[in-house]
Amino acid sequence: MFKVNEDYLKLPGSYLFSTVGKKFRGYQAQHPDQKVISLGIGDVTRPLTESTITALHAAVDEMGKAETFHGYAPDLGYDFLRNAMAAEYTERGCDIAADEVFVSDGAKSDSANIQEIFGRDNVIAVCDPVYPVYVDSNVMAGRTGTYDANTGTWSDVIYMPCTEENGFAPALPEKTPDIIYLCSPNNPTGAALKKSELQKWVDYANANHAVIIFDAAYEAYITEEDVPHSIFECKGARTCAIELRSFSKNAGYTGLRLGATVIPRDLVSVDGQPLHPLWARRHGTKYNGAPYIVQRAGASVYTPEGKQQIKELVGIYQKNAAYILNGLKEGGYTVYGGVNAPYIWMKTTGGMTSWEFFDYLLENAQVVGTPGSGFGPSGEHYFRLTAFGTYENTVEAVERIRKL
Amino acid sequence: MFKVNEDYLKLPGSYLFSTVGKKFRGYQAQHPDQKVISLGIGDVTRPLTESTITALHAAVDEMGKAETFHGYAPDLGYDFLRNAMAAEYTERGCDIAADEVFVSDGAKSDSANIQEIFGRDNVIAVCDPVYPVYVDSNVMAGRTGTYDANTGTWSDVIYMPCTEENGFAPALPEKTPDIIYLCSPNNPTGAALKKSELQKWVDYANANHAVIIFDAAYEAYITEEDVPHSIFECKGARTCAIELRSFSKNAGYTGLRLGATVIPRDLVSVDGQPLHPLWARRHGTKYNGAPYIVQRAGASVYTPEGKQQIKELVGIYQKNAAYILNGLKEGGYTVYGGVNAPYIWMKTTGGMTSWEFFDYLLENAQVVGTPGSGFGPSGEHYFRLTAFGTYENTVEAVERIRKL
Repeated sequence: MFKVNEDYLKLPGSYLFSTVGKKFRGYQAQHPDQKVISLGIGDVTRPLTESTITALHAAVDEMGKAETFHGYAPDLGYDFLRNAMAAEYTERGCDIAADEVFVSDGAKSDSANIQEIFGRDNVIAVCDPVYPVYVDSNVMAGRTGTYDANTGTWSDVIYMPCTEENGFAPALPEKTPDIIYLCSPNNPTGAALKKSELQKWVDYANANHAVIIFDAAYEAYITEEDVPHSIFECKGARTCAIELRSFSKNAGYTGLRLGATVIPRDLVSVDGQPLHPLWARRHGTKYNGAPYIVQRAGASVYTPEGKQQIKELVGIYQKNAAYILNGLKEGGYTVYGGVNAPYIWMKTTGGMTSWEFFDYLLENAQVVGTPGSGFGPSGEHYFRLTAFGTYENTVEAVERIRKL
Repeated sequence: MFKVNEDYLKLPGSYLFSTVGKKFRGYQAQHPDQKVISLGIGDVTRPLTESTITALHAAVDEMGKAETFHGYAPDLGYDFLRNAMAAEYTERGCDIAADEVFVSDGAKSDSANIQEIFGRDNVIAVCDPVYPVYVDSNVMAGRTGTYDANTGTWSDVIYMPCTEENGFAPALPEKTPDIIYLCSPNNPTGAALKKSELQKWVDYANANHAVIIFDAAYEAYITEEDVPHSIFECKGARTCAIELRSFSKNAGYTGLRLGATVIPRDLVSVDGQPLHPLWARRHGTKYNGAPYIVQRAGASVYTPEGKQQIKELVGIYQKNAAYILNGLKEGGYTVYGGVNAPYIWMKTTGGMTSWEFFDYLLENAQVVGTPGSGFGPSGEHYFRLTAFGTYENTVEAVERIRKL
């Protein structure tokens, strides 16, 4: 008599972006004549860059000939990609070896799966608001206690509010967590930790033998000098930090799927268990490597031309971010983020809840965003807009919102 | 103070194929002048077929233009691929809808992740010998009790011996399991269940409210009429079976990564929980879809030309399988499988253990296979050879073994 995983049943409602998508499609189906602009889900819209397209075609040709065919990839990734990523760390002054880089099919999978190498009784701390996958994956593992529908919080999770008052930078928690999720530049608030601020977290984690899972998915959008691109720019991070890397928002690989997780060999639990071999074991047992052609594409991003091309690609989205930020500011709205991140964090108007504001914008401006409350209780009365639309749509969306 | 997942630490040694690979590379490094032939890991060697290559190039071109760019894929797979797979089920007389097909990056990930939607206290039954991922993924989830290094078994796992005596077809277990893993045609023994035999399992599972996780990765190798290609050819399977599908061994996608899992909506636990939405939730939360270009490639396999081409591709490996089977038989060896599967299950000679035989073949014939004991205790004194080498290497390997 098989029994289901009861922890799955604890998850309230469906995944945030699925709900947003359903409402979007529902409205569009009822109003086929109206043009709905989505600045909601964080999906890119620009085509892949030339270096990626060229690398993909070349790799596909290799796969079509017996002499150059590639079967199973090495579990942890091809050296050509791991080396390229390690070289970038060296350029940034970070001490990361190629064999500490684990190639994967993306930061979403990794951010969901990484909790698995930890015991069930670890206490996690997350920012509030937060990317839902960190919490949901821990709910599914039975690590979060019971859900309070009134507050939208889990009994065993430590929440670190990121609010207007603290500039959306979390304070060190009062209760000491075992696992700390940090994302900087942040999804959804668009805020970014300065190096001195992140150093405090590294020191705190080392002092408490906690581990920081640092999501660096948006580092390519950093424009300010004192914001670190990697947690490994901080002293001591090798003994307390795991870094999640994405190719989605810099190289536009949302539909191509590539990411990496960095686990330094020095990261060891108090009772002497290193995390590196556990993650390696997970890859070896539960995963079969990212496609050869995609890893070749990923390596092309690190060539001089590749770097230049993704800089231009990111530049397009950065221009959108600046347009939304300044346009809405000029329109009298209260908006944050957008300087080091592709996300703009907008205060709802007229005391509307996030979902009320979602419906309001959809019905009156035909603009889709993401309700802030979907990211946690402190996201209530906020709304996330992304810079990943086309420039034309972005301009039009801002104009429509300003006309309301 | 973070603690690691203690269940990971219970795993004995490293992943079977990693060990085989290490020994292989170690020997080759010490004997760079010798040509070692691997019929070990189940990796294909033939290039991708024309339909796949053409589909990949076309899809890559789409990704290079804004009008045809594809970002995030639908969580559960593109309709064009789900529909193609569902249509094949219909052709086979199976009642499977497109929305019951969940597209993924491969059967290895799915076979490892599927246990996650079940509660921790389910008892699993596996064939012995068995593909290690079924057991290891359950070990990592804390579902298998304690390991006995002497017998190579876990206290809480039900083992169903597949031996020479029972024709490598498992008998119904004495103790009733909750989750039953079946793989037919089988990895590693190459044996295949006839339809009447599989029907018994379906009836047994329905009678006991157990679920069968049916691994159909090798169905393309079936040559005999009464061997089912899908468990859904059996009556009543919709209420008790999950089917794992792979593109690795039919279309040669080991390095491209594509698979699917089929969960009928009628599959519901005794207390009324359907499994379909749980797996959908897992996909939505922990996975971001298979790459668009790879799904396009996968759909090309279902076109008339695509079907013809993979039939030819499989035919090449089938020819190898027959060559190994007959060649070794003629050489006086005891060998099984190879008729409905790309695997040949060979008895070791002179009472050698599987690993002794591995070293013996590597050192004296420079042929790499996979030790049967790595698949479970009943695999001891057996050795797995695969048909995925080139024809020339396959012939040479058989000759070398026959000369010993």
